[in-house]
Amino acid sequence: MSAPRLLTPGPAPSRRSDVAPFMAMDVLAAANAREQAGGEVVHMEVGQPGAPAPRAVIEAASRALALGRIGYTEALGVPSLRERIARHYRDAYGVGVPAERVVVTTGSSGGFILGFLAMFDAGDRVAIATPGYPAYRNILKAFGVEPVEIECDAASGWVLTAAAIERAHAERPLKGVLAMSPGNPTGTMMSRDALAALGAACKRLGLWFISDEIYHGLTYERPADTALAFDDEAVIINSFSKYYCMTGWRVGWMVVPERLARPIERLAQSLFISVPYLSQVAAEAAFDATSELEAIKAGYAANRALLLDELPRIGLGDFLPVDGAFYVYVDVGRHTNDSMAFCRRLLDEAGVAATPGLDFDTARGSRFMRLSFAGSEADCRDAVRRLGTFLRG
Amino acid sequence: MSAPRLLTPGPAPSRRSDVAPFMAMDVLAAANAREQAGGEVVHMEVGQPGAPAPRAVIEAASRALALGRIGYTEALGVPSLRERIARHYRDAYGVGVPAERVVVTTGSSGGFILGFLAMFDAGDRVAIATPGYPAYRNILKAFGVEPVEIECDAASGWVLTAAAIERAHAERPLKGVLAMSPGNPTGTMMSRDALAALGAACKRLGLWFISDEIYHGLTYERPADTALAFDDEAVIINSFSKYYCMTGWRVGWMVVPERLARPIERLAQSLFISVPYLSQVAAEAAFDATSELEAIKAGYAANRALLLDELPRIGLGDFLPVDGAFYVYVDVGRHTNDSMAFCRRLLDEAGVAATPGLDFDTARGSRFMRLSFAGSEADCRDAVRRLGTFLRG
Repeated sequence: MSAPRLLTPGPAPSRRSDVAPFMAMDVLAAANAREQAGGEVVHMEVGQPGAPAPRAVIEAASRALALGRIGYTEALGVPSLRERIARHYRDAYGVGVPAERVVVTTGSSGGFILGFLAMFDAGDRVAIATPGYPAYRNILKAFGVEPVEIECDAASGWVLTAAAIERAHAERPLKGVLAMSPGNPTGTMMSRDALAALGAACKRLGLWFISDEIYHGLTYERPADTALAFDDEAVIINSFSKYYCMTGWRVGWMVVPERLARPIERLAQSLFISVPYLSQVAAEAAFDATSELEAIKAGYAANRALLLDELPRIGLGDFLPVDGAFYVYVDVGRHTNDSMAFCRRLLDEAGVAATPGLDFDTARGSRFMRLSFAGSEADCRDAVRRLGTFLRG
Repeated sequence: MSAPRLLTPGPAPSRRSDVAPFMAMDVLAAANAREQAGGEVVHMEVGQPGAPAPRAVIEAASRALALGRIGYTEALGVPSLRERIARHYRDAYGVGVPAERVVVTTGSSGGFILGFLAMFDAGDRVAIATPGYPAYRNILKAFGVEPVEIECDAASGWVLTAAAIERAHAERPLKGVLAMSPGNPTGTMMSRDALAALGAACKRLGLWFISDEIYHGLTYERPADTALAFDDEAVIINSFSKYYCMTGWRVGWMVVPERLARPIERLAQSLFISVPYLSQVAAEAAFDATSELEAIKAGYAANRALLLDELPRIGLGDFLPVDGAFYVYVDVGRHTNDSMAFCRRLLDEAGVAATPGLDFDTARGSRFMRLSFAGSEADCRDAVRRLGTFLRG
């Protein structure tokens, strides 16, 4: 039996649920629908590696599965994984971090939920870069925190600057600053000096400084610096999803100042109970898969070189500096003033899925689209060919 | 090199991060520490099945692992799992639910995060039962929503009643009501009529009605009713953690009214991106593991019978009706007026880990403790023996 339908409308969804949809996900759904209907799609829209997780990761998960004991873990994560992450800071950056300050999270998403709640109260203001990752804005808003979008442009090197933060704070006080380098959707990196200056400005102004380092490891010109190298109090967000090819596992981490660890533990106990166990065991093995991961990265580097070479030839030569990550953020303003419609036509007519810039920049995104080169070289080549035909058409 | 220590203190954690710790987790940590130091512990504190996930679940995960493609899924969950959950409502309750109204979540925890944000704005008031699951209170508070604790007692059958909700709403308007049957920590169930009356009261008053059905399947006297049987607009929270023995997988689900599906999808896109892929694939197989799961449940039933029989003999005969779940909520007021200290001594001196009632009832919990009988019969027997000695000591 089906329960009877209500005649009265019932309460309405909350006002805060009225966040923007994540258009990249909607494009993914449209692309999947096209494929299921038998159409071809070259996937340039998804921010996830085309490669599966490294062999050592799969094997570690298989061993844990065979043991069968997949229970809750400590709210802050399995101790051995926290230790291993702490060691990673010594190995990769030469920075000492005690395991007590490492928090294992359910993807970087879990880190944002816990971190934002632990640092900010309703009404606080947090500066973020535009263009930038749209979930920042949406999660902050859902928690009653005001995202203060700082428009980045060529003059600022497409990243947040200490000067811009000082201006914004002088206008109306901020409570925190969130930076990402390499960035999404831009792939652009902050220089060592710019990162240090930004952290110093936060310290001077008494603000939380959050550094989203999820694309670390994926850099093509020079390695990325962790904000911890300059500022022991920085809040680091990271994840096994990108360099370590573990998107669907939903496991990431934070490094936090000592005084945030217990508040985050309390919040995690109630909001998450624990991070998926298999993913934690598997993540620990990811640190030993360097040769496999570097080979995957070499593939991205080849894809990047191909796109940097070919895109200008088909009339898409305006894009931001691609220092890292696996994105090219392309100015398509010569072809459209509505990148959403442009991306829809691109999928329908050319079978190429790309993400409209409006996800990342509500004002100027209508003239940008993001191409991800985390897939195969064949896909990149095919995408360029299809894009060329589409633009000539 | 270790980064230099700050001399200035930096910003403080948010006010809302000052939620209560989940003492069950703290007890778990203390018990683990005791074990690592070579001490014995009989675990009666953890709300998770002692049995591993069913064989079919492990096998489904193994097959998916071997395929290696562990990527993001649709934000609302893998379509086939949403279909399978919808079918479960027909099979288990005779209630028709379209898959479009099913949301796969990262454990019931993910359901609370998404559901609370989608239904409630800061300042809204939501009624919950006391004693009750402490995470409700903590998550609501973290989101600026006021939990209105309704004290349940013997006179109300230890559950929320329509009359109590009407009184609370008359005092100051509520926006929603959250009920759990069977309950945690009580194991107590609402009658069919009481559940229907509660839903009807919510409808009459224009309130969201949330039914946490995570302990469904684990009932010993009569099956539990889903709130959907009476109220198509009820918001259902459920999980694969309890009956299906999949705690560490972190996968659960919601059934929501149509008008909540899109707001929840938007929030999920930003707050979670997707639920762990392997857990979703594995969860689908859990519905076909009925004989294995019923055998595990028969073990709980035997443990329950043992405790109901033995606890009175050692002076712990005051407990709430154990209709379902795998808990006995015991009144230890004859032995202590500080159940936290009592549980600490119980662990230190008798090696039995139990959860103090203060997690579940800040006012009256100092005279209660929760024993979980989700482990082995040997553990239950051992716990009773140790408790008996401890109380005589």
